Amino acid sequence: MTRIAIDAMGGDHAPKAIVEGAVWAAMEYKIPIELVGKQYDIERELDRIDQEGLVCSMGGGIFPHKRLKVNTKSLDIKITHASEVIEMGEAPGQAIRKKKNSSIVLAVNAVVTGSSDAVVAAGSTGAAMGASLFGLGRLHGIERPAIATVIPTMKGPLVLIDSGANTDCTPEMLYQFGLMGSIYAKSVLGIKNPRIALLNIGEEAGKGDELAKDTYKLFDENKDELNFIGNAEGKEIFLGNCDVIVCDGFVGNVTLKTIEGVARMLFYMIKQEFYHDIFSKIVGLLVRPVLKRIYVKINYEEFGGALLLGVKGITVICHGRSTAYAIKNAVKVAYNAVEAGINKSIASYYGEIQ
Amino acid sequence: MTRIAIDAMGGDHAPKAIVEGAVWAAMEYKIPIELVGKQYDIERELDRIDQEGLVCSMGGGIFPHKRLKVNTKSLDIKITHASEVIEMGEAPGQAIRKKKNSSIVLAVNAVVTGSSDAVVAAGSTGAAMGASLFGLGRLHGIERPAIATVIPTMKGPLVLIDSGANTDCTPEMLYQFGLMGSIYAKSVLGIKNPRIALLNIGEEAGKGDELAKDTYKLFDENKDELNFIGNAEGKEIFLGNCDVIVCDGFVGNVTLKTIEGVARMLFYMIKQEFYHDIFSKIVGLLVRPVLKRIYVKINYEEFGGALLLGVKGITVICHGRSTAYAIKNAVKVAYNAVEAGINKSIASYYGEIQ
Repeated sequence: MTRIAIDAMGGDHAPKAIVEGAVWAAMEYKIPIELVGKQYDIERELDRIDQEGLVCSMGGGIFPHKRLKVNTKSLDIKITHASEVIEMGEAPGQAIRKKKNSSIVLAVNAVVTGSSDAVVAAGSTGAAMGASLFGLGRLHGIERPAIATVIPTMKGPLVLIDSGANTDCTPEMLYQFGLMGSIYAKSVLGIKNPRIALLNIGEEAGKGDELAKDTYKLFDENKDELNFIGNAEGKEIFLGNCDVIVCDGFVGNVTLKTIEGVARMLFYMIKQEFYHDIFSKIVGLLVRPVLKRIYVKINYEEFGGALLLGVKGITVICHGRSTAYAIKNAVKVAYNAVEAGINKSIASYYGEIQ
Repeated sequence: MTRIAIDAMGGDHAPKAIVEGAVWAAMEYKIPIELVGKQYDIERELDRIDQEGLVCSMGGGIFPHKRLKVNTKSLDIKITHASEVIEMGEAPGQAIRKKKNSSIVLAVNAVVTGSSDAVVAAGSTGAAMGASLFGLGRLHGIERPAIATVIPTMKGPLVLIDSGANTDCTPEMLYQFGLMGSIYAKSVLGIKNPRIALLNIGEEAGKGDELAKDTYKLFDENKDELNFIGNAEGKEIFLGNCDVIVCDGFVGNVTLKTIEGVARMLFYMIKQEFYHDIFSKIVGLLVRPVLKRIYVKINYEEFGGALLLGVKGITVICHGRSTAYAIKNAVKVAYNAVEAGINKSIASYYGEIQ
């Protein structure tokens, strides 16, 4: 049975939110879990949940929560002790070599030994990536693993790849990102024949920097293999007219964080405006359910985490400030990716015998 | 007296919106105008305004408009005939060489001959840039002119430079963008000692691609000249903790259009949600004034256009779908930039005797 290893010590709200999310996933989806981290801390959290119940909330408290009675001992959760933790400030490469007993290294190791099938991690992105690359290795044929993030559009979800793993890319790398993103969209999101677009500064062929121009050519020459529909500008990301957006990790990361920043600013402004006068305050109360519905649609928690594609295994990288709800959903993403055999699809493209 | 030349034929709503914006600016700010384009078309629009009055509206019709009685003959508006127009699809470089009598080429020429002091253009960005570079030339010491766009943050306006003029930049170019952006923020936006940040994928020094790393070093070495405060991630753009964000034109353009796209999607979603049920529809009516106040804060029309910095002259590049209100504001931006002597400040940095 597919089991998901979770780095219990990573993220702003670890281990509390992580353990809660793990318990939630084990309850709701019946997914077997392996919690990796300081045994005492994990057990203390599990005990607390057994005593106090599991607080199920989303949206960082803006929605009403419910408290469920749980017996964590009845769930399929095993604990693997890790004596060390890689902190956010540490240089990832050095840290994973030095801290061989850190929770992230041992969580990845659980996949290597076959004890689990995928990793969910909310700590340092660099450490999760490094540990995965180092521990799992690259899939045959893949030059550089990349991070695929699912973002909301007016019509449905879209895969942005690479959203931060690689800077200074080549056209060949971007082509592979397109391939992996397409397989992800197809096998996990269920999109038939995903439409791939290149993030660029104009729609016409020949637009963009040297990398974009050469990448466009490469995709265009291989149209029989991938459903390349051309360039997409930043504003088109959200129209829902393509399913996979390809870019280098620098541009992807800036784009992703810009989306987060704009959304946060607009919600902040809306909130501010509702304190403008007494009339606005009353309207503010009425408008809450409407804003909540929108919040749900664009909430990063819904997809929980981004997939590191191109390694021999599944690693889901979560937001540093992940809540229990985000972790629960990330476990589901990891589970779906394993069940869909996403790596088999990628590897088979490069002719590796599984 | 400072006169602003306007390409009357450029943009989705030209010449109507352009001529209306020009008349509005001439009325409200008493700024002398030179309208460059097909004489018959311009005169017809002016006649229409004289007969029907000037419709003053913002937000593309979502706000109530007022209609002002105008006698355009009493305003300081001169017309310069241009027999050709560069269309959006044309290759800019070729078009400006071929169409020597196009409205954008002659509008730039008005600055070269001294008939006007700045250009406002809402047509092809490439053509406006090309014509300006070719016609006006670069300022002494400036390697590459760049586009500076003002965007809203939670605290105040911020200059994003380069927002689309240059791809494949060097650290030296980015340093100059920072310098020019800083002078713009200081002299036109009135920000004392503007804080400059480098758009990057992490806050720490040593983050990012090769370009970002080398650019960071260059800014860091020259801290006595510019108020460099380090890296800023995409999500920090909107916190208002810096005044100038520096990046290459590829990243800047993607960022700018992403902001536009997210904002549009959120407003679309809000609108959709207010059609959800009868309760939502009623709340929707109540919420309109609140959303309008936010709209005003983030409306691109407020700044009207982006400044092309680094050429011997002032060119304000406007959004293709510019309204009369956007053009009116763009004229003001151009006027302020001329009055502030922005080019003198940039040139004097590189020791040119004016």
